[in-house]
Parts: sequence; C-alpha cells; structure tokens
Amino acid sequence: MTRVRDLSEEQILERIVPLLPRGSATLLGPGDDAAVLAASDGRFVVSTDVLVEDRHFRTRWSTGYDVGRRAAAQNFADIAAMGARPTALVTSLVVPGDTELDWVTGLATGLADGCAPVGAGAVGGDLSGGPCLVVSITVHGDLEGRPPVLRSGARPGDVVAHAGVRGWSAAGLALLEAGLVRTPLSPAPLEVTDGVLLEDAWERLVAAYLRPDPPLAAGVEAARAGATAMLDLSDGLLRDAGRLARASGVRLDFDAGAFAKDRDALHSAARAVAAATGLGDPGWGPGTSDIDGLTGRWVWAGGEDHGLLATFPAGARLPAGWTAVGQVHGLGEVGVGEAGVVEAVVGEPGPAVTIGGELPADQPGWDHFRA
Amino acid sequence: MTRVRDLSEEQILERIVPLLPRGSATLLGPGDDAAVLAASDGRFVVSTDVLVEDRHFRTRWSTGYDVGRRAAAQNFADIAAMGARPTALVTSLVVPGDTELDWVTGLATGLADGCAPVGAGAVGGDLSGGPCLVVSITVHGDLEGRPPVLRSGARPGDVVAHAGVRGWSAAGLALLEAGLVRTPLSPAPLEVTDGVLLEDAWERLVAAYLRPDPPLAAGVEAARAGATAMLDLSDGLLRDAGRLARASGVRLDFDAGAFAKDRDALHSAARAVAAATGLGDPGWGPGTSDIDGLTGRWVWAGGEDHGLLATFPAGARLPAGWTAVGQVHGLGEVGVGEAGVVEAVVGEPGPAVTIGGELPADQPGWDHFRA
Repeated sequence: MTRVRDLSEEQILERIVPLLPRGSATLLGPGDDAAVLAASDGRFVVSTDVLVEDRHFRTRWSTGYDVGRRAAAQNFADIAAMGARPTALVTSLVVPGDTELDWVTGLATGLADGCAPVGAGAVGGDLSGGPCLVVSITVHGDLEGRPPVLRSGARPGDVVAHAGVRGWSAAGLALLEAGLVRTPLSPAPLEVTDGVLLEDAWERLVAAYLRPDPPLAAGVEAARAGATAMLDLSDGLLRDAGRLARASGVRLDFDAGAFAKDRDALHSAARAVAAATGLGDPGWGPGTSDIDGLTGRWVWAGGEDHGLLATFPAGARLPAGWTAVGQVHGLGEVGVGEAGVVEAVVGEPGPAVTIGGELPADQPGWDHFRA
Repeated sequence: MTRVRDLSEEQILERIVPLLPRGSATLLGPGDDAAVLAASDGRFVVSTDVLVEDRHFRTRWSTGYDVGRRAAAQNFADIAAMGARPTALVTSLVVPGDTELDWVTGLATGLADGCAPVGAGAVGGDLSGGPCLVVSITVHGDLEGRPPVLRSGARPGDVVAHAGVRGWSAAGLALLEAGLVRTPLSPAPLEVTDGVLLEDAWERLVAAYLRPDPPLAAGVEAARAGATAMLDLSDGLLRDAGRLARASGVRLDFDAGAFAKDRDALHSAARAVAAATGLGDPGWGPGTSDIDGLTGRWVWAGGEDHGLLATFPAGARLPAGWTAVGQVHGLGEVGVGEAGVVEAVVGEPGPAVTIGGELPADQPGWDHFRA
C-alpha cells in the first residue's frame, strides 16, 4: 500500500492531475503558476469552503471519493445560489504523511465526478503535509449576462420556494452514527430524485450526507425565471432562511404543512434511529423527544442538504424542481396566525422566520466554529 | 484575552470583514453566497496556495499579521508571474479554538496590507475549527488583454533575468533558527530595496522570510516588455529554474558571478549563523561546509524569496527592477564551459540548468511534502 509520504510532491501531482477534468471555460489548465479561465460576460463569481477531517467528514465513513464529490458539490451550490453556472474549481489539500495514496486519488476522482454534471474544470491546486486532512475548495461561476441573485432581494408578496432534498443529510448522518448503514457506499453516483422515499432507501439518505447532489441547474433556472433572492441551504433551513430574511428586511413565513411529506418519508429512518440510540437522546438536540420531533429537526434544522431557497414574484411560474413552501411578508404586516402569535412576531427586533405565522421552537442549526 | 472559541462563527466574521479591503475589481463583496468580480478582458487568472502551521510558519516567530502578509504576497507572486495584475483573494481559515482572536484579526490586517499595494480586494472566505492553523488563499488576476506569460516560452538566445531579493528569505529563517533576531518585528512594512545590505540589516532578512514582498509590478512590466517565459521563485532558484527549463525544452545557463554581490551581502549573516550553530551544521544541507557554501545555498537553493525569473528576447530592454543573470541555450548546443563539462550537460536526459556552463552541485531546494 502506497502512502503519500513514500512519494515526492511532484510524484503525487503526476498521479492526480490526469484525473482532473479540463472544463469548457478553461483557457489554461494546471501546470503553470496560475490557470486562466474564460469569463464570458466580463465578470466571474467566486466562493470558497473548507472541509476539515473530524469536523466536516470522518474517514471511517467517507472515502476520499466521497469527500471530493461533497467538496465540489457544496461549493458549486454557492455558485448556483447566485444564479450562476459553475465553471472551475481549485483545491488546496493538506494530507498527513500516512494517508493512503488511494485516498488522495479517490478525492481527485470525486472532484472530477462533482465537476462533470456542470462541465466545470479542476484547474489548479496546492498540496501540503499536515496533522489532519483539510480540503479547501474555491469555485468559480459564470453569470452569463444575468444580474446575480442576492440574499437581499426578497419583497413582501413574493413566493418562497425550495429546490433539492429536505432533511436527508441529517437523517443520513444519524443513520451512520447509529450504525444502521454500512460504508463505504458504492462509488457509482446514487440518483437523488424528488419521489417518495422507499423504506429500504436509507442508503440514499446516507449518500445525501456523504455526497450531496445539490440542484445546480435549478439555480440558473431560478435566475432566468426572475427569482428575487436566493441562497444555498448549508446550515439548516430555518437558520439560513433567517439570513435571507435579515438581508432582505422581511419576514419569511413557511407553510406549516410544506414539508409534511418529507417528514413522513423520514419516519422509518427516525424510528430506526430512535430504537438504536434511545428516544430523546440528548445528541439529537432540543425538541426531539418523539419521532415527529426528530423528523422535524432533520427537515427544519438539519445542515448540509445544500438545497436552494429562493423567492419569486407572486404569480411567477416556478421552474422545474422548485416547490412553493411559503410567502414573504413585510415586517409590520399582520401575519396569518392568531393575534397573540402575530404580536410576538411584530415585537421581534428585526426580521424573522415563521411557520404558519408562529415563531418556531429554538432550532438554531449548525455553527461550524463551536461544533 | 478573547479566544476564538468564546465567539460564534458569525461574531468572528463581524470582527474580520470590516478589516478587509474591497478592491477596485469587486462588484459584490463578502456577505452573500459568493462574490462577483470584474474580468475586464473576459478572462481571469487563478491560483491557490496553502500555509500550514509548523510547516510553512511557526507561531513563535510569525504573528497573525505576518502570516496574512505572507499569504497574500506569495499568492500574488503567482499572479504576477503570469504577467497579470492581482485583483482579489478569498481565504479559507482553520483555527484551533484556543487561538487568540487578536491572531485572527491580525491575519485579516496582514491580508489587507498585502492587498493594498496592488489595489486587490479580499472578497470572501470560510472559517472552521481544527487541530492546527491552516490558511488557504486563492488569488485572482487580470491579464488586461495581454497573453499570459507561461513557463514554456523560453527560446535559445533569450536573456535570463531576475527581479526581487535573492537568498534573503533563507538567510532570515536561519537567523531566526539561530536565535539571532528577536520577533515579533514591528508591524510597519519594512521596505525591501535592491541596494547593498547593511551589516546591521538582519531584520530585513527576517522580514523577507516572515513577510515577503515580491516584485509584483515587475511581473506586469515584464509581460509588457515581451518576456517569453516567467515563473515565481518559491522552492529555490535552481529548482524553479529547472521547471522553466523543462517546460520550455531548453537549458538555462546562469552567469557564474550573477549573484556574487548578493552572496557578499549575506556574508555577515552567514558568519553569525555559523558561529551560533557550528560551521557545517547538517541542518544547513549539502555543500555548506564553509561560509561561502552557506551563502551559496541561500541564494541558489533557498526557498520562499518569491522573486520572479523570466526570459526576454536577446536585445530587449529589461524593465526597471530586472537584472540579466544568464542565457537560454538549446539542448543540443555547445555550452560555454570546458569540453568535459559540456558533454555532461549534453548527456543529460532532458533540459538542465547550468552555472557558467557547469551542472551545479546537488541543491534540490524545497519539497513541501517531504519536509
């Protein structure tokens, strides 16, 4: 078994670089001091994300391939959330010397498979030793002449819509932690569909955690359809929705039943997890004293689904892949709930997220730093 | 004393973001899913580099400010080496929870000071906890309509030229390791000039290691003056020159006396280091059994000077900051040395770097991974 410490930096790069896709916007790929990319409309979009071993992934569950797929996908979701088409990524990789070379080449293959659906290139990188695995990805995108879709553009009267899976990643992580699904998963990409989840489809939930498959095309389609605001859902639906609400200076009200079908679909996984770990396990967080609480937490507060949340003008026809899940209200407006509830919302110091007009129970989502 | 674990991710970002410069090419700065940058000629240049604690810097010598300055500078050097003007950077930062907040805000200030000379923006980032400090920077640049200057363009007959300091960074590191200069240095930027180094100017050598100041403008000027090939010198002059030679399919011959003045200027530091650590200390590497060997190693093999090496057509007028240091030869040509020496060069399997027609002694420079 070859470990990375057995090879020089240049020898490792010789194994990695041939695995990486060139991409349709790449004018000059890896091998020089820098790469050169096309920016068709004289602008480019850029975002960066870092994955740290034992914080964002665990090598006992995630192969190098999984981490590469996830790193590409979750970064491209940030590009899609601007309404842009992903064009290229660069990677900084920190690897302990005893890492197997196969893990590193697997990562490269995962990056390549993450790039493939959008035709993006993997155009450069840097490699260093270090005490734990760190994968830092910077992604780029092309707005193709459109204005970027910001978080700040939601207006009262807009429709709130969602694209992607809901709660699958948190459920998949819980299944892994409870030992209910074995890894590694098959390296073949698992198709994520919008259909009803079968009882025996736990592997799909685990795949959603290990290798999220964000609705990248839906971001571009939303921009074309006139989305007024959009963001990637990485830290939990309610937490990220709060960011959009604050940036726009509005209140986002979700339909109470918007995700009932999703919660139903997660019941079998929740029952199994509860049976394996004990119902109301403190690790599941507040409000999870029963199965319904657990599926609610997965859907409303679970991180890393990397779906997209957007707002559209009232009456706009939602593009394929998008589901209406709520409405945008002004801060001073009377909500849809009972009088006492509306007062609580109006009394908030700033914008808020409500579910059926009510402030949700405390489900703060994920804080990368304190975790 | 505030440590990062005392604050949430959002609270830390609230301290960092106001310190970061917007930059002249920034259309949308931090705060959304991604930033938007201008690409004036429909292309952009991108490069990434990672700095790992105890590999690329040590916190007992480098403040957060130093690491920020260095991270920006060494990345921008890669952009300059393409003949491009740096426009923007994004940062992924991994910090242990017990890191002082001042270290992180110092890093942001250092990044800002590294951006200032070129008007670049710091337009986004990501923050995570982790077991050691990791700073991953991705930089972008604008070719302003010019073709990129590649490593592969050197042609027989070209002049080899250099811009920047030579051996200062390695000498500065040696002075630190020998305990001859106290840190932290003053946060005021130390001017690096091309003049003769004073005997009492060791702080400048240390500053060249802690906060390199690459000749960024010289990269753009070289491109405008018709440079045929160029690269950033990060892993040592001979090692990096070999990369340019291989990419171009040529032999690079340095004038034997090209850097004699630089070596003379480093003599006082070398004498002091040798007195402190013992002459011929195995830590100094091969060929360093005397003072002259030590200064030679610093100049020819010392890493992280982040000067630029370029080739220009014969007779081209070198821009300000550039010094002619050698010539480009074809692989089959007869060199300038003695017959036996030339045979050795011709007998090499591929392109080579020579000094006065002779193959240099083994001074391989820096391998990030094996170090």
